[in-house]
Formats: sequence, C-alpha cells, structure tokens
Amino acid sequence: MSPTEIRTHPFDLATGLTTTGEGGFLGHTSAPYSNMVGPFGGITAATMLRAVLDDPRRTAQPLSLTVNFAGPIAEGPFTLESRPVRTNRSTQHWTLTLSQDDAVATTATAVCGTRRPTWSDTEISPPAAPPAESVAVADPPEFPVWMRNYEMRFVQGGGPLTPQPRETPDSTTTLWVRDTPARPLDFLAVTALSDVFIPRVMVRAGRMVPASTVSLTVYFHADADALAAHGDRPVLATARAQHFGGGFFDQSAHLWGADGTPLTTTHQLVYFKD
Amino acid sequence: MSPTEIRTHPFDLATGLTTTGEGGFLGHTSAPYSNMVGPFGGITAATMLRAVLDDPRRTAQPLSLTVNFAGPIAEGPFTLESRPVRTNRSTQHWTLTLSQDDAVATTATAVCGTRRPTWSDTEISPPAAPPAESVAVADPPEFPVWMRNYEMRFVQGGGPLTPQPRETPDSTTTLWVRDTPARPLDFLAVTALSDVFIPRVMVRAGRMVPASTVSLTVYFHADADALAAHGDRPVLATARAQHFGGGFFDQSAHLWGADGTPLTTTHQLVYFKD
Repeated sequence: MSPTEIRTHPFDLATGLTTTGEGGFLGHTSAPYSNMVGPFGGITAATMLRAVLDDPRRTAQPLSLTVNFAGPIAEGPFTLESRPVRTNRSTQHWTLTLSQDDAVATTATAVCGTRRPTWSDTEISPPAAPPAESVAVADPPEFPVWMRNYEMRFVQGGGPLTPQPRETPDSTTTLWVRDTPARPLDFLAVTALSDVFIPRVMVRAGRMVPASTVSLTVYFHADADALAAHGDRPVLATARAQHFGGGFFDQSAHLWGADGTPLTTTHQLVYFKD
Repeated sequence: MSPTEIRTHPFDLATGLTTTGEGGFLGHTSAPYSNMVGPFGGITAATMLRAVLDDPRRTAQPLSLTVNFAGPIAEGPFTLESRPVRTNRSTQHWTLTLSQDDAVATTATAVCGTRRPTWSDTEISPPAAPPAESVAVADPPEFPVWMRNYEMRFVQGGGPLTPQPRETPDSTTTLWVRDTPARPLDFLAVTALSDVFIPRVMVRAGRMVPASTVSLTVYFHADADALAAHGDRPVLATARAQHFGGGFFDQSAHLWGADGTPLTTTHQLVYFKD
C-alpha cells in the first residue's frame, strides 16, 4: 500500500486533522466509525494521538497515551488543542483537549520518548491461538457500525457476536484482528486496535449491555519501524476484566504481532449498566 | 486513630496543600518521602489526588487517576493547579498540573464518578501469601529514605532488599505493606501504595538500577467507606512487569484488602538504564 493509499484509507480519513495554528486542529466525526453514542473510542484515541504525531514540535515517538472520555462527541466538527507541556532531552509530555462548542468532550496526555538499545525481555506470553488464516472471519454486526472497519477472527470470547451467545464465567476475548480494508500498522492503528474489544461485561452476560470507556491507557512497546515492518498482517489481541462492581469494570489487554512480539499493553476503566 | 492524628501523620504532612484560590494550591516537598531524585512518585501522585479531594467543586469519589512524571521536582515549594474540565450527572473529569518556577514537573488527569449497586465479580485472585503477621518485616534500606515510611513484609521478589540478592527470571514482587506509623486507608493512601513497588528491573537484576516512573495509572475499586472499614491493616500488594525493552518497561499491579477484596489495579510505564 502506498503512502497515498494510506491517507485515503477510511481510518486515515476518520482521524484526519486540519491545522488551524500551533497546537490547534480541526477534525470531524466519521460516520463509518460510529459507535452506540458518538464515535468508536479507538478512533477518538487515535485522533488525539494524531495531533501529537502531526505536530512539528514533537521530538520523539509515543511511549504512552491516556485518553479520558469526558462527554459524548456529537456528529460533526470538533476542535483539538495540544500542548507540549515539558520537553526533556529524551522525553516529551503532552496534554490534549478535544472540544465541541467550547465543552470539553475528551482529554488526553501523551508521553513521547527516545527508545535506545537495552536489555530486553517479555514476561508475558501471547495467548494460545491457531494461525489467523485458519480462524473464520466473524460477520460484523449491523450495529455498532464501526466494527465493519475491522476483520475479526474470534479465537475465544466473541460474546454477543458468538453464534449462540450465553453467559460465561470468564471475560477473556482473544481474536486475530486487522483493519479492513487492510492497512499497515502504525502508532495510530495500534492505538485504535487497543480499544477494539467489545466491552467485557457483554462477554460475561452473552448479550448487549450499555457500556462505555471512561479512561483508556496504551503503553507502546514497538517503535515506528517495528510497526511498519509488521505491515498489514493480523494482530493477536487478548483482553480480560479484572474487577466488576459499582457500575464500573477495568480491562487489561495485550496486542501481539504475528511473530509473537508485544505491540501494546493497554488498560481501561469502563462504565456499565446492568 | 483520630482525625487529628491522621492530619499530623507524616503522610498527611507530606501531601498537605494550602489553597491559594479556586483550583490553586501550594505544596512543599517532604524530606522523609525523598526518592533517588525528587520525591517518591507515590507521594506526588497522592498530592495530585489530594488537590481533587480537597476541592469544594468535587461532585463524586475518585474512579481513576493518571499521573505523568514530566520532570524532576526539586526540594522546596511547588504550585498545583486543578481544573474540573467536565462535570456530568455521574462523572467528573479533572486535569492537574504541578509546577516549580513556571516549569511543569507533573501532569495528571483524574476521573471521579458515582458508584451504584450493580452486579459484581472479581476475575483475578489475590496472590498466595501467608498471613501478614507471620512474615518478617524487612529492614528498610538506608536509601531511598521514603521506604522507611512503609512497613514491608516480602512474600516474594524483594529484589535488592533480599538478604542475598541475585538475578531472577520473573519480576513478580508480592508483599504485605502498610504505612508506618500505621494509618487508616483512604484514596490517598492506596494511591501512594500503588507505587510502593521497587522497580521491576531491580528485581530481575537483583541489584540497584537507575529507574523512574514515567506514567502511572490507578483504578480505584473500593469506595471511601470500604477503604475506611479496612482501617490500618496491611494490604497485600503484588506487581509484575510485562515487557522490558528500549529503555522502558511496564508494570501491572494489584492491591488487595486483608479480606481478599480488590482495592486498586494499577499500571505504570518506567524508564530504566541498564
């Protein structure tokens, strides 16, 4: 896929921003990435990160991103403000705000930093899974529409997307997933993919349950070159809840490259209604 | 312990803030909570949260907190600015900035929200551990001094604090821990305790290694009443790294109440030098 093709991919159109001045951006919601209410959280998170990536003041690649979903984003335009609040020799800290009509809808903080060769080890392992090509592609549901942008091959825990959904005692979901049409990995793609999991409460209940992410954190373990080298092969993604209670649950997830290297570890706190 | 005693506890003196106006606070570093460079990250994180807890505009209890350690905090005074950027019916989103001489040293975002009775379940389990009273209290090291504020009983993975430290293939640390002198739990205490673990890279290496937290996220699973009911009993804390590489690693950890209920799940990205 050529750079031109990447820029006209639906994902890039959805996360595209127009610069309005230093640290100022204008964006627009994208119908194909609509969720229950407002856009798919992963596309909003990727859009926040795009403001950092597109900023000429950026000195290093992303290390971590936290996005807080403060209020619904209505269909239409939004503004985004970014500020590099601290630039050190090897790290740079950013704060970001997405607003509509002067109301804050999303906040984020991002840390960029210079990776350097060090001792390396991975203590966790990818989940057991047959090769992607041997797992059937799930039929995307009618609703929410954003799921049609992802080719999902469920190894475990399809929740309401399972042919005969039922309650389960374990919230784990494991799937092979990639953008459709296929698109090479980059920081934006793995940010959105870090939020690609249907809410854990739906997997437990085996049915649709109102739920929305409150706060999402992504730690990036692969750099730009490693992501580009992965290309558009499916990513092995796995997520589970840790605790449900009081109307909220947390989820921890990992994205693995096709060769078993960790791409991101990612955590979120989610509101649910039972 | 009476409320007066709580307020004069070293932890409360260290996290104490003076209001200078709406959303404005003045604080001061506390020598007993000094780390290698600047204060113990947990005390900084708790101080950021204190600004939210002390703010009359706050509408609900904390659900999540992310703190980004943007630059060193020098010994002396600092200013803290807090802003409730969005207040909804059941959630409230805050952004916070800690500065010294107009340079941003720490940023944070906090989400507060109303918990309500719902279906509840915990999918993870506390680590195996003998009762706290049967585990020896570790001798606090000479340095860093902040560790003298915690009574630590290591069940596994004491790293350089182990009598005969050596390299290990697994970074897991499990310990019983509480403030010393003992102090009842609250949101501030569990925030600091969520950062109480010596860096995972030191556990793997079995020796001191330069390391510092870049970004810390805490998800609060217990509300104010549950924390107060726990009192000053030791908390069972466990942490492990997921991936080390490029000069950074991530850590995921859990704090458990003495009765086996989850208090926080917490994650951080850490810089290290090998």
